[in-house]
Amino acid sequence: MATLPRITTFAWVPEFARGFVRDLRPRWAFEEVGQPYEVELIRDAKTAEHRRVQPFGQVPTYRDEEADIFESGAIVLCIAERAGRLIPNAPGERLRAIQWLVAALNTVEPVVMEFAINEIFEADRSWSAERRPVVIGYIEERLTDLQARLGDRAWLDGDTFTVGDLMMVSVLGGLRGTGLLDRFPGLAAYVARGEARPAHRKAMADHLAVFKRAATA
Amino acid sequence: MATLPRITTFAWVPEFARGFVRDLRPRWAFEEVGQPYEVELIRDAKTAEHRRVQPFGQVPTYRDEEADIFESGAIVLCIAERAGRLIPNAPGERLRAIQWLVAALNTVEPVVMEFAINEIFEADRSWSAERRPVVIGYIEERLTDLQARLGDRAWLDGDTFTVGDLMMVSVLGGLRGTGLLDRFPGLAAYVARGEARPAHRKAMADHLAVFKRAATA
Ligand SMILES: N[C@@H](CCC(=O)N[C@@H](CS)C(=O)NCC(=O)O)C(=O)O
Ligand SMILES: N[C@@H](CCC(=O)N[C@@H](CS)C(=O)NCC(=O)O)C(=O)O
Repeated sequence: MATLPRITTFAWVPEFARGFVRDLRPRWAFEEVGQPYEVELIRDAKTAEHRRVQPFGQVPTYRDEEADIFESGAIVLCIAERAGRLIPNAPGERLRAIQWLVAALNTVEPVVMEFAINEIFEADRSWSAERRPVVIGYIEERLTDLQARLGDRAWLDGDTFTVGDLMMVSVLGGLRGTGLLDRFPGLAAYVARGEARPAHRKAMADHLAVFKRAATA
Repeated sequence: MATLPRITTFAWVPEFARGFVRDLRPRWAFEEVGQPYEVELIRDAKTAEHRRVQPFGQVPTYRDEEADIFESGAIVLCIAERAGRLIPNAPGERLRAIQWLVAALNTVEPVVMEFAINEIFEADRSWSAERRPVVIGYIEERLTDLQARLGDRAWLDGDTFTVGDLMMVSVLGGLRGTGLLDRFPGLAAYVARGEARPAHRKAMADHLAVFKRAATA
């Protein structure tokens, strides 16, 4: 019997982080391609042992018989390539799927994180309230452009859901509960469409179940 | 005669941006793999025409006979894959190269950009000076971990220079002139090693020549 691919995530996170930890991304990809997997729960990501795979002391990581990697973006790409799914074969379309995955990680996520930093990590700093509209401005600039591009397409590149959409919906999901998507109905519908996929529902349920178990243990 | 791949970049940028515009990344990759290319200089990236390829109205973009994409990270990956260079063939090593490229874009670049935002875009905000040490703290946390992982290796994954190094050196190059790398001699030497490669020197010279020509035109 072949060993299953295995990811790591946290055994426990505070309430505000539930639904957001990035093991959601590989979980969702595994469900989309129909690949069973194992999850190793860790209590502390800053140990020397964990840092051997994840030098920044974070989750998730991924391991299979050939690979031992970190970075949710690289992991999702790996799961898709191994399965030959979520990435079109035609070279032009394949590159566009990768382009959208990178756009999610390098163009959209930085402004989403900026908001989390201001609202969570810098919440008690003297500038947090005054800086908030500036940070929201950065997000709205990106979301305006992204919504214009999406137009009335179902997915970023048309009719086919790819790793690019998986990552973009995951990144935009980071705005859940902030109200910031409300002014972007096209994007809100896009995120809702992604999160309604059976694979996402299953991944989210499994993600949340870990913390529910931990809370009652 | 086959058409050459073509990238876009700005015809002119202010002094402070010279040496930093992201056409440097594909230029460097082209030089590493020995692929001739063409450059289209644009004055305004916010036009409807340019946004058809780059929805966020930015540079660079890339076009060849099969692909028409944006995102410097995806472009560099495309150039490497087309050439069959800068990415090892063995699956484990290949994924680690991609992992480092994504780490540069999604773990290191966000904190580097945070500094640029504070020092340039928010320079005249009331909080900029007070927030500076906090932002520097974010950078130092990442650089400490990255330097520890690099250890005494020449490149992130050992002896072989990959797209992961190309992107990490490019991202860390964003700290040039800030003095922030001075406290990280291992990383400073790594960046110097990358920037001393003939392919990087040529790419940087060609990148700067555009703006020198513009200045005397
Ligand atoms: N770029 C990394 C970021 C990973 C990351 O931020 N992980 C968070 C959980 S979602 C974490 O481990 N945080 C703990 C920490 O940074 O100390 C990825 O996408 O995998
Ligand atoms: N994530 C994108 C970012 C591109 C980017 O920031 N481009 C800058 C030049 S280095 C730009 O066009 N700035 C003009 C603007 O944002 O309006 C990539 O890596 O290609």
